Amino acid sequence: MKTILKMFLPATLIMLLTLTLTSFNSSTAQSRRDVLELRCAPLDTVRMAIIGLGMRGSEAVNRYTYIEGVRIVAICDIVPEKVKDAQETLKKRGFPKADEYTDVEDWKKICERNDIDLIYVCTHWDLHTPIAVYAMEHGKHVATEVPAALTIKECWQLVNTAEKTRRHCMQLENCNYDFFEMATLNMAQKGLFGEIVHTEGAYIHDLRFLNFDDTTGYWNMWRLKHNEKENGNLYPTHGLGPVCHIMNIHRGDKMDYLVSMSTNQFGMSIAAKEKFGEDSELGKKSYTRGDNNTTMIKTAKGKTVMIQHDVTSPRPYSRIHMVSGTKGFAQKYPKLGIALEPNAHQYLSEEKLQKLLAEYEHPIVKEVGAKAREVGGHGGMDFIMDYRLIYCLRKGLPLDQDVYDAAEWSSIVELSRISVNNGSKPVKVPDFTRGAWKRLQQVTYYN
Amino acid sequence: MKTILKMFLPATLIMLLTLTLTSFNSSTAQSRRDVLELRCAPLDTVRMAIIGLGMRGSEAVNRYTYIEGVRIVAICDIVPEKVKDAQETLKKRGFPKADEYTDVEDWKKICERNDIDLIYVCTHWDLHTPIAVYAMEHGKHVATEVPAALTIKECWQLVNTAEKTRRHCMQLENCNYDFFEMATLNMAQKGLFGEIVHTEGAYIHDLRFLNFDDTTGYWNMWRLKHNEKENGNLYPTHGLGPVCHIMNIHRGDKMDYLVSMSTNQFGMSIAAKEKFGEDSELGKKSYTRGDNNTTMIKTAKGKTVMIQHDVTSPRPYSRIHMVSGTKGFAQKYPKLGIALEPNAHQYLSEEKLQKLLAEYEHPIVKEVGAKAREVGGHGGMDFIMDYRLIYCLRKGLPLDQDVYDAAEWSSIVELSRISVNNGSKPVKVPDFTRGAWKRLQQVTYYN
Repeated sequence: MKTILKMFLPATLIMLLTLTLTSFNSSTAQSRRDVLELRCAPLDTVRMAIIGLGMRGSEAVNRYTYIEGVRIVAICDIVPEKVKDAQETLKKRGFPKADEYTDVEDWKKICERNDIDLIYVCTHWDLHTPIAVYAMEHGKHVATEVPAALTIKECWQLVNTAEKTRRHCMQLENCNYDFFEMATLNMAQKGLFGEIVHTEGAYIHDLRFLNFDDTTGYWNMWRLKHNEKENGNLYPTHGLGPVCHIMNIHRGDKMDYLVSMSTNQFGMSIAAKEKFGEDSELGKKSYTRGDNNTTMIKTAKGKTVMIQHDVTSPRPYSRIHMVSGTKGFAQKYPKLGIALEPNAHQYLSEEKLQKLLAEYEHPIVKEVGAKAREVGGHGGMDFIMDYRLIYCLRKGLPLDQDVYDAAEWSSIVELSRISVNNGSKPVKVPDFTRGAWKRLQQVTYYN
Repeated sequence: MKTILKMFLPATLIMLLTLTLTSFNSSTAQSRRDVLELRCAPLDTVRMAIIGLGMRGSEAVNRYTYIEGVRIVAICDIVPEKVKDAQETLKKRGFPKADEYTDVEDWKKICERNDIDLIYVCTHWDLHTPIAVYAMEHGKHVATEVPAALTIKECWQLVNTAEKTRRHCMQLENCNYDFFEMATLNMAQKGLFGEIVHTEGAYIHDLRFLNFDDTTGYWNMWRLKHNEKENGNLYPTHGLGPVCHIMNIHRGDKMDYLVSMSTNQFGMSIAAKEKFGEDSELGKKSYTRGDNNTTMIKTAKGKTVMIQHDVTSPRPYSRIHMVSGTKGFAQKYPKLGIALEPNAHQYLSEEKLQKLLAEYEHPIVKEVGAKAREVGGHGGMDFIMDYRLIYCLRKGLPLDQDVYDAAEWSSIVELSRISVNNGSKPVKVPDFTRGAWKRLQQVTYYN
């Protein structure tokens, strides 16, 4: 058996090398400077445009009316009612009307304006990178919904454009700002878990009710189309974002390679037939995405991340959010608990847990947690995310999430698909920082 | 990128094919009949020998004094005190003395006797297969602690010997008999979860206190030696056994291939230094096994199993035991819960859960659950396992776990190591039934 394995080693090397070359090819100018901890000129008032007013965009309009130093200059959606509803929100909250855009390519006109600082992208997935790139090319900072990119090529487009234009490109990974996630980041940075060895995250959310809703669900059933045609982990960032920051990915460590495995497809066919009938167009369609996807990522420092995706199986919501280190352990789903040396065999009692969570409450949560809970948006994390984005832009600070985060976390979409479609073979994760990942040693949320 | 991937496909095929050939090579007589649902002559009284009287063996002696139709004929351990203690147990419970064996190779003498029906193996891992094979070759049924085998070669030895001798070879996978595991098996077989799509299991148990105990821990610190030299999932069966039966592995489906990933080693070095000092022999040793191992297995029918191993990290015990199907979901650790269509977004309330668990209590648990809880042994599951072994032997029924289970579940030890040592590349799981896995359609615990 050993002989056969040896035969494979050269092949592996070619594989890894080739993917690295692919990454470098995507860089049209290797000499350009990275944008790690990029600082831009402070903005007194952030003039923003929100593009896409579906589920996420319409909520964003409301949240931003609670944030100081922001002016919503323009809103855009191809469904005129969505624009009307957003104007209603602004009016109710005592804000002036925003400029309205409803044509398919109006996002370009918005990016071309010279009285806007920030483009906030809440469209369907396919437009995230095109809008982000166009916005940066027109001098705008950009914040885009997840995943920021759908392919490795798009990931490189984001990185290359941000480096060329020196603009911020933040992926709106709200889960990084959830209360327990922020507490565990704080705990990890203060050494409570020792050296972090293994983490887990997930997006386990039964979305059949939305994906197969042809009236009030996703516009034009766009999300189902991705789930119909693609395999792998289509939506990795909610699980990955928080643990990548805890593991200081591209701040001293980096994702090295991954393997990914999907079940066959079972659940979507059943859901389609149940909802629309055996003989309906959707009932007869063949769906590609396996119900459950598990992806394992190895880092340069020999740590691992396990990430799952399941939006079809009947099961309770989970992002797992598990952190295992040499001194302690934390997990959010299905049971929130922390265990610490020297008694890590057992979870902390509820009383001790609450005391610890209070002690390690993240400074940012201390600052705006109460208001965030009041305004809401997934329990408050959306508000904290928006607050932080504006806070940093106004102070000229580096954003909490940079373009490399956006590229790395989003890259799993295509990399997991490549692995799944090739019998779970290992696939190299491109180094989007081109070697600069060693320079910083920790994620910093600046204040 | 597509061109490069195509280059890899022939290589993959060679890999898979070669491993299959390896399996067939291990079969010295392809024409021999399989032992699926093997029935042997009923035994009125099961005359047994227990070899190895450490943690597991000494407890077994006690448990068997509570089981009817058994006579402990011989006991064996190279530590004379262990034999003496076992005799004490027998005496206390009103049973006659057993014949005593304390020499290193006495297990051979025991197997060579002609007044013994069953050899019960509780030695350290390295002797499981040698004793099992020798026992079967001398006409004995055998039950062996986990893992039954440490290499693919040993797995084939077990299978080939059982097929040649027509003897039972059961791996003592006690976790299959735990109460929730048996309930979920019953639920799965009654269709409560629909088609099972994905399962998870684990052996997450911080064993540092035992592995690094040089006085009262494992004899001669044998377990540390494995953890010192080997990588991958060294102890896969506790997590894998219950879900493999739920998924009817080699009864209509089979494990096809796996990928495995380990973290680097962090925790053992820390533990050794803390316990024995930086400059001690153990403190300076280099340890191989990565703290956390995650292995993903794809089945022939396109289902997946995720199995983890971690015996070093400070974290609470978990075997996960998760079952996800097209109609429902169950998970044991860290929170025992069940969720069912049409309300699977939420876990059943405690009241509904208890009602469901009562309704689906496994018939075997109904039969002996109360006594099992009384006698104990990991809360009762050890007793149910022993009870079932003796019950089936006395009735001449197929055992609940056959030699293919033993081989399949144990094979992960070497297969995960091969994958880990080769950058997580996919590795084919041998078909130990040589094609017979399609004949049966479900696991049956006979009555």
